[in-house]
Amino acid sequence: MATDRIVVLAGGVGGAKFVRGLRTLARRTSSPAAITVVANTGDDLWLAGLRVTPDLDSLMYALAGVNDDERGWGRAGESLRVSAELTAYGVGWPWFTLGDLDLGTHIARSALLKEGLPLSAVVERLTARWPLGVRLLPATDQEVETHVVTAEGELHFEEWWVRTRAAVPALGFVQHGVETATAAPGVREAIMEADVVLVAPSNPVVSIGTILGIPGIRAALRETSAPVVGVSPVIGGSVVRGMGDVCLTAIGVATDAGAVALHYGARPAAGLLDGWLVDDVDAATVDPLTAAGIAARAVPLWMTDDETTARMAAAALSLARSVRE
Amino acid sequence: MATDRIVVLAGGVGGAKFVRGLRTLARRTSSPAAITVVANTGDDLWLAGLRVTPDLDSLMYALAGVNDDERGWGRAGESLRVSAELTAYGVGWPWFTLGDLDLGTHIARSALLKEGLPLSAVVERLTARWPLGVRLLPATDQEVETHVVTAEGELHFEEWWVRTRAAVPALGFVQHGVETATAAPGVREAIMEADVVLVAPSNPVVSIGTILGIPGIRAALRETSAPVVGVSPVIGGSVVRGMGDVCLTAIGVATDAGAVALHYGARPAAGLLDGWLVDDVDAATVDPLTAAGIAARAVPLWMTDDETTARMAAAALSLARSVRE
Repeated sequence: MATDRIVVLAGGVGGAKFVRGLRTLARRTSSPAAITVVANTGDDLWLAGLRVTPDLDSLMYALAGVNDDERGWGRAGESLRVSAELTAYGVGWPWFTLGDLDLGTHIARSALLKEGLPLSAVVERLTARWPLGVRLLPATDQEVETHVVTAEGELHFEEWWVRTRAAVPALGFVQHGVETATAAPGVREAIMEADVVLVAPSNPVVSIGTILGIPGIRAALRETSAPVVGVSPVIGGSVVRGMGDVCLTAIGVATDAGAVALHYGARPAAGLLDGWLVDDVDAATVDPLTAAGIAARAVPLWMTDDETTARMAAAALSLARSVRE
Repeated sequence: MATDRIVVLAGGVGGAKFVRGLRTLARRTSSPAAITVVANTGDDLWLAGLRVTPDLDSLMYALAGVNDDERGWGRAGESLRVSAELTAYGVGWPWFTLGDLDLGTHIARSALLKEGLPLSAVVERLTARWPLGVRLLPATDQEVETHVVTAEGELHFEEWWVRTRAAVPALGFVQHGVETATAAPGVREAIMEADVVLVAPSNPVVSIGTILGIPGIRAALRETSAPVVGVSPVIGGSVVRGMGDVCLTAIGVATDAGAVALHYGARPAAGLLDGWLVDDVDAATVDPLTAAGIAARAVPLWMTDDETTARMAAAALSLARSVRE
């Protein structure tokens, strides 16, 4: 891996899998790359008086190796003693699981925020406990919250996603506060000084979309000399994880690897992407995308384990190198 | 029990035992007395971003029957999964045990406070979960915090009590905010309309002392036509529970059943007490106290179980009746 400074824009669980593979790849070289992960904070919420940051936690737990692989989210070995109490008191959302170990994180985070620390400093304090092998940054220190517009009014994204399981038709998404938010300390610098920027196969609307919505980040991604290469979260017309297709449909984008790339746009045309990885089943999109100014390549994209994902990350870096040349 | 409306001024664990005995007594009559407990809030603190109210919780848990009788405080069947996480993150006081079930209460309380509810309304919401058989009121909705003055500066009472085990010499106590605090809704009314006011055998300095320090409560106790009868927390020169003798010594009061009564003072002389129960071993204080304007009586005061405590409560009510006649 010739690349030294890598920035990854990432959502939660999918982003974490991708970054784990990238880290596996980086650890193999004699001079490992410095990886900075810019995490979506649009799913963050106040719940039972505590600040919950789902994507940052998915990344932290997965990179620390304390995540629950079977369930796909949260901490391994979780228990629910505290949340049973909260439900008995009628506080919080009974349908939103807050495990005991996870609550430890939320309490610690909320205590540090209450002391006046910005979220980025809180993340630094919390992650000091574990050697993540990457630098984890929230996209912004301000509170940006993604709400879903439905016929019956707005719902917080997590309420729509978890309680209704995205079954209430989404008419659109509003990222409250995103336009006045500034990039967290270090984010712009990391992007400007990067050798490559990767876009993880996360939800293009509510994860990557929210990060891109922050004006300073959007500008840095246009200005950086680093190539920007994305990995498709859509394989063969299906979103690999979660219910992201509903999000794409709501904003009028087809659940299609090529359509997502065109939604991000070609960088020469003021879009985001220099390059785009699609799965082999979507090889037919390679030529049209390349013609549209996005250098595309087809490789296996299923992140079945760290080894497979590391190969996928290597393909993304290789594509970035070819774009830069 | 001819008495209909009883108000008890109470600290935590000792107060809870006393109120349980009183409740046992009250439940025996065909028209049970209405018991209002006014709880000390001076030990309350913000810890790990959460509002912790030790005395209110000791009362709530004991009256709900979910307290840990063996340990003497907290919830039965406790576990420490969350606090191990907090310690790993370096947040909170590692020497101040926050059990998982107990944390459920603190999170719920803090969430409701964050919503803007005053503490008294929060207590009403939390206690709605259990039929306590008494009305539980915080002395005040304002934040009054007892600090201990030491040679090295001030410590929060709980830090001094729990971390140093009251071993750092106390030069005095400061109840921050007490003079500008107002009685919580219902407290003054309960005292004014009471048939009898009882002072539980709680710490006279930091528990009862803090309640009495709130100007509106002090005034109501002077104005009410109800007799005020206290129960000595000192038996035979020792404080029955905890390290209350250190608190008495710090304010220059001997650890003696008679000295505590004189510290509270006789009501005719603008003090608190009409009557005072001492243990049989302190029978020698009865005549001097009565001569000083405090009708005293000696009875067994060890609160070994609800039945024994009920007899003690009956003696307090009987003394109150004799004072009123």
